[in-house]
Amino acid sequence: MLHIIGIGISEFDSLPIGSVEVLKNSDFVFLERFTGFISDDFMMKIHNILNDSKESQLNSGIDIKFVKRWYIEDGREILEKASSNNVSILAYGDPLVATTYNELMVRAKKLSIDVKVIHSSSGLISLIGETGLQPYKFGKMVTLMNDPMSSITVYNTIYDNLSLGLHTLILTEYNNDDGIDNFTSSSNPFYLSPKKVFDLLLEREAEIKLANLSTKTFAIVASKIGSDDSQILSGNIDTLSRLEYEGGPNSVIIPGSLHFIEEDSVRNLTKLLDPPNGNSSRISKLANRMLDKYIPNAKIALANLINLLSSTGEGLPKEYESVIENAENYLNDAQTFYNQGKLELAILSIGYAEGLIDSLRFQKNMNPW
Amino acid sequence: MLHIIGIGISEFDSLPIGSVEVLKNSDFVFLERFTGFISDDFMMKIHNILNDSKESQLNSGIDIKFVKRWYIEDGREILEKASSNNVSILAYGDPLVATTYNELMVRAKKLSIDVKVIHSSSGLISLIGETGLQPYKFGKMVTLMNDPMSSITVYNTIYDNLSLGLHTLILTEYNNDDGIDNFTSSSNPFYLSPKKVFDLLLEREAEIKLANLSTKTFAIVASKIGSDDSQILSGNIDTLSRLEYEGGPNSVIIPGSLHFIEEDSVRNLTKLLDPPNGNSSRISKLANRMLDKYIPNAKIALANLINLLSSTGEGLPKEYESVIENAENYLNDAQTFYNQGKLELAILSIGYAEGLIDSLRFQKNMNPW
Repeated sequence: MLHIIGIGISEFDSLPIGSVEVLKNSDFVFLERFTGFISDDFMMKIHNILNDSKESQLNSGIDIKFVKRWYIEDGREILEKASSNNVSILAYGDPLVATTYNELMVRAKKLSIDVKVIHSSSGLISLIGETGLQPYKFGKMVTLMNDPMSSITVYNTIYDNLSLGLHTLILTEYNNDDGIDNFTSSSNPFYLSPKKVFDLLLEREAEIKLANLSTKTFAIVASKIGSDDSQILSGNIDTLSRLEYEGGPNSVIIPGSLHFIEEDSVRNLTKLLDPPNGNSSRISKLANRMLDKYIPNAKIALANLINLLSSTGEGLPKEYESVIENAENYLNDAQTFYNQGKLELAILSIGYAEGLIDSLRFQKNMNPW
Repeated sequence: MLHIIGIGISEFDSLPIGSVEVLKNSDFVFLERFTGFISDDFMMKIHNILNDSKESQLNSGIDIKFVKRWYIEDGREILEKASSNNVSILAYGDPLVATTYNELMVRAKKLSIDVKVIHSSSGLISLIGETGLQPYKFGKMVTLMNDPMSSITVYNTIYDNLSLGLHTLILTEYNNDDGIDNFTSSSNPFYLSPKKVFDLLLEREAEIKLANLSTKTFAIVASKIGSDDSQILSGNIDTLSRLEYEGGPNSVIIPGSLHFIEEDSVRNLTKLLDPPNGNSSRISKLANRMLDKYIPNAKIALANLINLLSSTGEGLPKEYESVIENAENYLNDAQTFYNQGKLELAILSIGYAEGLIDSLRFQKNMNPW
């Protein structure tokens, strides 16, 4: 049987009580720290628990060791052991947030090996809670790696979420697979810094120009959630970029629209460096930008066209009356649809009105714009 | 000091080890079961832990009791106690997922009362993990209450998420505040059934007609995640609606597009009743539906218009050449923009082309459509 045990976000303190019995009944215990950091101290505490137990004294100790990424991803030895022994894997946070364990579970099921997951506190849910933002105000979340390609996806997701008024949680790269294999080794994991996150996003802004991010964009940085020196800072990107961040994991939130209760939470639950400010109102969808520009322009063009056509002094020629009347109606429709949030229909209507206007422009070779 | 302690999703087994010491050092311990169910058995275990401890024997026991929703929401007594005592509140899952505790935290901070949160396994992250769907493939999540108004928001969120290829997690109403106040009482909480979820969604589909939900929509039902009799079922809505569900909590997932790895996970990790099937390909955005219809129709209308205008046998009158040429160009633009996914520009172009065509229709009083 295979037990995948979440340690949670606070090392030994966050380990679920029920996992102790499972560990004591295990024949093999593996720990890894590539999906999230686990200290040597934690390992030592588990070692002590296991070797205090009667079972392990009878069995001359339970085999327990740190394993590397390849060992879990390859998985063959684990699955072979689990087919006839009790095997436990200890992993940071809630283990199933990482695809690694999902794949291992599926492979175990295919081999008819029983799998039991012990869930635990997850970094992403914990940090959302601690910022005071509402979980149901978040859109799709993303992970930012230390490369420009990854930041394109992240940038576009921010834009999609902002368009819907939603917050974006950006998890950042964590890398720790520097050859740790045995019990006593320490390690220096790589954590992507919040400054790098902001640099990459502002670079993409300069190119893509959709989300209207700037040095004045209000953001939240959550660092080391679950540890004693965790901190949540909020402020404008330029303020947050000037700070030093040691270690991690660091997560960044770009808020969409902030409800006043969320604003109050951010003021009180985070270390506030600049006034809280939602970012959704500062962006506008392409559709809104088109309509904001095209509707007033078309109104002016239509008035100009009527003047140009009537310049003979005999009023509007009769053959154009129906065209002009329809253009007026569709311009009004465009505004009405826009007010109702029916953007597709508003754009169709403004396009149609422009077509009517320009048909006369082309026929008469006059420019009302 | 105020401690907000998450019990996690598996009662005593999921309680974080570190919380035991916090509980033993508490002067007051409150449990509630309105944000999620907690059994009397759990209460008894906590009672035994607290009263076995030396501190509590010296202090003639720690005060521990079940409290109702109003008591936490009112919060004044809790905050007053916490200003000079150690107060712990035990709540289901990860406590900060519920707005209740967010508000309490903010109020405590405003009163300069220290707050510490002990995070724990959360139902929503656990169930996402157990289905094998990728966490970053989920859009905004929603809660469905037992009323039609709530289902409109849920339905619209499903549509928004499906449009982006994303899954929707629907948490469902849980209600348990039937006057439980003391130690030994039991309770019968209300859980919204999956069948009711599907009924409400299909009712909204019949009215709103956007998300293309039907009895053949593939969905996932996760029930009682964290308990020994948890189950995850997947299948078409009609299959899932025919089953009986006892108790809860029940959550429903409407998958967007399914990656083949996700499909493999769903096959192996859930009880599969019908073949897995993403739902994003079955919906089309309003914009797509408009363009699919309007572009071919306008092409035909333009061809008809040219025929009608040329019916004198002398070919297309010269004054209309420019209008026709522009209509052709904008029709081609509409198709090109559509192919590039630039839907707003495609709609603007098709509207414009239609306006050009109809200007001649109005002037000549002929109908090419």
